[in-house]
Amino acid sequence: MAERNIDVLVVEGPDGFDAANPNYNYFVNSAHVNGLVIKKRGEPAMLVHHPWEQLQADSTGLISVSSERWNRREIAREFPDRLDAAVEWRRRMYRDLGVSGRVGVYGTVNSGHNFALLTRLSQVMPEIEIVGEFDHDILTTARLSKDAHEIEQMRRVGRKTCAVVQAVVDYIRAGRADDGIVVTGAGQPITIGDVKRLINREVSAHGMESPIGVIFSQGRDTALPHAEGEDSEPLRLGEAITIDICPREINGYYHDMTRTFAIGYASPELQQVYDQVQEILERVVADLKAGEPTRRYQEQVCAFFEERGHPTIGSAYPLEEGYIHDLGHGIGLEVHEQLLFSALPTRNDMVVPGAVFTIEPGLYYASKGFGVRLEDVYACTPDGQFENLTPFPKQLVIPIEH
Amino acid sequence: MAERNIDVLVVEGPDGFDAANPNYNYFVNSAHVNGLVIKKRGEPAMLVHHPWEQLQADSTGLISVSSERWNRREIAREFPDRLDAAVEWRRRMYRDLGVSGRVGVYGTVNSGHNFALLTRLSQVMPEIEIVGEFDHDILTTARLSKDAHEIEQMRRVGRKTCAVVQAVVDYIRAGRADDGIVVTGAGQPITIGDVKRLINREVSAHGMESPIGVIFSQGRDTALPHAEGEDSEPLRLGEAITIDICPREINGYYHDMTRTFAIGYASPELQQVYDQVQEILERVVADLKAGEPTRRYQEQVCAFFEERGHPTIGSAYPLEEGYIHDLGHGIGLEVHEQLLFSALPTRNDMVVPGAVFTIEPGLYYASKGFGVRLEDVYACTPDGQFENLTPFPKQLVIPIEH
Repeated sequence: MAERNIDVLVVEGPDGFDAANPNYNYFVNSAHVNGLVIKKRGEPAMLVHHPWEQLQADSTGLISVSSERWNRREIAREFPDRLDAAVEWRRRMYRDLGVSGRVGVYGTVNSGHNFALLTRLSQVMPEIEIVGEFDHDILTTARLSKDAHEIEQMRRVGRKTCAVVQAVVDYIRAGRADDGIVVTGAGQPITIGDVKRLINREVSAHGMESPIGVIFSQGRDTALPHAEGEDSEPLRLGEAITIDICPREINGYYHDMTRTFAIGYASPELQQVYDQVQEILERVVADLKAGEPTRRYQEQVCAFFEERGHPTIGSAYPLEEGYIHDLGHGIGLEVHEQLLFSALPTRNDMVVPGAVFTIEPGLYYASKGFGVRLEDVYACTPDGQFENLTPFPKQLVIPIEH
Repeated sequence: MAERNIDVLVVEGPDGFDAANPNYNYFVNSAHVNGLVIKKRGEPAMLVHHPWEQLQADSTGLISVSSERWNRREIAREFPDRLDAAVEWRRRMYRDLGVSGRVGVYGTVNSGHNFALLTRLSQVMPEIEIVGEFDHDILTTARLSKDAHEIEQMRRVGRKTCAVVQAVVDYIRAGRADDGIVVTGAGQPITIGDVKRLINREVSAHGMESPIGVIFSQGRDTALPHAEGEDSEPLRLGEAITIDICPREINGYYHDMTRTFAIGYASPELQQVYDQVQEILERVVADLKAGEPTRRYQEQVCAFFEERGHPTIGSAYPLEEGYIHDLGHGIGLEVHEQLLFSALPTRNDMVVPGAVFTIEPGLYYASKGFGVRLEDVYACTPDGQFENLTPFPKQLVIPIEH
């Protein structure tokens, strides 16, 4: 905080955002507690929270302050305009808790409400200066390095995510081929919707949830990295199928994992592209080194693919076919955290001990009717080793034996 | 927009917030599409989105604009500072799409990033004035009135939520009493954790999720409205047990439902409090009328409880025991939406056709070791009738027959 010349951090809490508030959850260990965190430089963090939620507040280990210490009903009587009342409640709280100087603001909020509140607050409290950090802010930077306890949790959510993908593979393998599609033992076509329901059930059975959605796409859709798949389509033999799921343990950390499969068989062209994606993923992982700039790996992937005749965003942007995106991203209390494996001139990220991130090369060809992406999560340990948190094999073809 | 003198709405999209962005989801029908919505007064809304997500963008019916029309890589090369680059991308977009005048800002964002962006943007674009609406803003006001299609979806999530609670009741009834607790047929104690896992499985099996958490609390914890329950506790006979769940259909609407139960038997005191809570809920519902201020119903509940000797926030605030909260809240793409059934001087909400809201009286007595709350969702139809969207009986005791 000294380095950035920030005197106080104010981190806004839920307002219905709960899981979607990583900076707040970092302080409260993802407890469901309505409130806000105030941390003055050199002092422990305080949690201002509703008195009904004392149990949750106690579980956070933060200093607990009742939000009703500044009586909202009395303030509302005095200030019938809601913005005035909200500002007055803040003013009293900031005054009593000694919030002054450069105040960094964080947390998930409603844009307009927050802008109105912060603008008015700086008018009525000339003793504070609101600071919105944009790039590499204090909290996302702090969250970048995971400690051993966090990495253990991320290992667990990784194992659970692999178990979900294994359940999908097992379900498909238990089917049989019938006229180019996969059917159940009873002869019913297995659809993408069926698989998505299975994924949702398995995610839930492992104590996880999928707030960002689930990708299970087939054929030409796999060439669009974010196409989610058409529920009504039956699974077709020989087509590229991409599963990309990023579940979160309830009150915990995210994982993010992608595999491309083909059921029964794959064309030589699809297999070749798959093998290239797998090869460069393995090369990158073998070369990972703490202290290196992440752009080096993005450049390595672009060079590898271009040597093999694929267009890449290393040479042209935007791009519709070939290698069209960045190589990976940080992950933790958010799916996409600081630390982008990108060659963008605005990024100067480095691989650091405690970083947890995805590596996810892919090649996309709508004109050929397929895309391939493989994605694992890696943790950089304190001593600079790299651990794969996605222990799941990479094999294109799911054999159909029935 | 004319009434509020706003020329353009800008609604920020995902950035990882997906389900937790009701104002954006209102425009994109909860599609998983990264982008932002721009709507000029008197013109149809535009969706600026990533070109990979063309399928999702098409599904929204909005006018589709590629976010790469303003080449981010080129901008990044010219503006190596990330805030500068983000502002320049916006500036070009706003200029080309004719965004000027009073610009209302909406959507779920990161507080500091957004404050930095908006502050800088108003510096470099003197032709725009950023407007943060605080109270009864355009979008939450528009979302207050649900159309027939929305109410049909809310009916469906209501039925599914009741099915989850029914599964919990069935699970408990299949148990047997053993030395004051409930055990399975095999003699294993049934714990709160077991019930929560059942709830999560059932929520998922019905195509829903619980981003706000699940309350299943017992005994003294039920006197704290937001206590979530201790996973390790076995279910005890005769104790108050409160289930309060607010699942959301994936890509859809929320429901919110509470029942208090007692397993096997209830003390006369608990039964009496339960009966009073049920009676006032029924009275309020019988009196609901479109066009009435919501405060009238909060006052009705306070008067009813005070006549029966209970302290209420009608007379003292904050309050630890008795009737300690507001009567209900709007619900839809958020659990808590505009329309609070409150006597707060800052609220002047009215029951309007199309409103969907909870009614949830409760009484809380930590000193007696219990709290009781009953909560159903009601919709006000266009012709001013009221429909209960939570078709589930109210009966305190779950009999144990084995």
